[in-house]
Amino acid sequence: MSERSPKKTDTMTEAERDAYHAEKMKKKKAARDKILATKTEERGLVIVHTGRGKGKSTAAFGMVFRAIGHGFNVGIVQFVKGKWGTGERDVLEKFPEQVTIRAMGEGFTWDTQDRQRDLAAARSAWDAAKAMIADETYKLVLLDELNICLRYDYLPLDEVVETLRNKPRDTHVIVTGRNAKDELIEIADLVTEMTEIKHPFRAGVKAQAGIEF
Amino acid sequence: MSERSPKKTDTMTEAERDAYHAEKMKKKKAARDKILATKTEERGLVIVHTGRGKGKSTAAFGMVFRAIGHGFNVGIVQFVKGKWGTGERDVLEKFPEQVTIRAMGEGFTWDTQDRQRDLAAARSAWDAAKAMIADETYKLVLLDELNICLRYDYLPLDEVVETLRNKPRDTHVIVTGRNAKDELIEIADLVTEMTEIKHPFRAGVKAQAGIEF
Repeated sequence: MSERSPKKTDTMTEAERDAYHAEKMKKKKAARDKILATKTEERGLVIVHTGRGKGKSTAAFGMVFRAIGHGFNVGIVQFVKGKWGTGERDVLEKFPEQVTIRAMGEGFTWDTQDRQRDLAAARSAWDAAKAMIADETYKLVLLDELNICLRYDYLPLDEVVETLRNKPRDTHVIVTGRNAKDELIEIADLVTEMTEIKHPFRAGVKAQAGIEF
Repeated sequence: MSERSPKKTDTMTEAERDAYHAEKMKKKKAARDKILATKTEERGLVIVHTGRGKGKSTAAFGMVFRAIGHGFNVGIVQFVKGKWGTGERDVLEKFPEQVTIRAMGEGFTWDTQDRQRDLAAARSAWDAAKAMIADETYKLVLLDELNICLRYDYLPLDEVVETLRNKPRDTHVIVTGRNAKDELIEIADLVTEMTEIKHPFRAGVKAQAGIEF
């Protein structure tokens, strides 16, 4: 346990603490309002979720559902076969009019070890992704685990970067996967790194329905 | 642009590269299978999403949908008022039989500045959370932004830690919010820190439907 350091509020009465709190929150609100007033542009973003921690695809999956809630159409390309579990698929299939999923058929997996087949599958999945990005009826396009294809040089990085740079103005594109390329981070608007601080595998706990898949 | 460092595969023929790849993937698969074989325990996890970056609540929201897909019941307590947008709520309301949401009515927000009201609201939300955790019909309980209540000492940390430590064996509990307390991280099974690498606010882009709310 870390030792708790003393706080300014420790020696205050409840009434003093309430007043102190009100003043502090008022200042925070003013600062936040001032920042928000300068943010006026609205456009589609290139978003990258990377890092070794969990939550990259799951946060993207959460954004897909948020977009569904807003009535938007969403396109999803899965660049790693079998990455998404039955939980994800079953619930996405409840929104067939809003969600289109393209899975990279025989795509990258540690189980195949066939590079030529992976290369062909990556190309086919990327062509599907390009078509979705070009189709402005999709407000959000998720390229799940695209980073792994770039890492293994299954797709030309230049072509991917150019496509994202020239995407339709209002379309949001999310790219997930560890080891995001620098060139991708450079053109992205929002990049979050998920860092693993503690993982249950270390304690011998296995992957479980609802949590891992 | 970062300069690309030369790779072992750069000087190989395509056929050599395919063979190299197959061998490497085979080793990876063997290593992974070996690790997986030792992971046999199945139990509910205490999961923490913290850090200053985006995706903490969104990844939790994604896990909620994954659980819905598996047919599980999910309980959600929102410790910050108005944090979730219409996108999230509208899509969750499509699953009324599986999802129960309790929002901390007049809860913490920078707009109120009323500490006594915040304290009462935090207590009421926490009581709802405890009841959900105790109710084993919920397979997953999300305590969204609980960390902010702990940070402002709105709830006794000891009581929260004890409740999570003694949760029913099969229940998963997710706690989100920046500045997670050390004591919480200590009892958690899975902790991910979301780190902000790049944020569109810096470029003057405002919060947008489907992305921020």
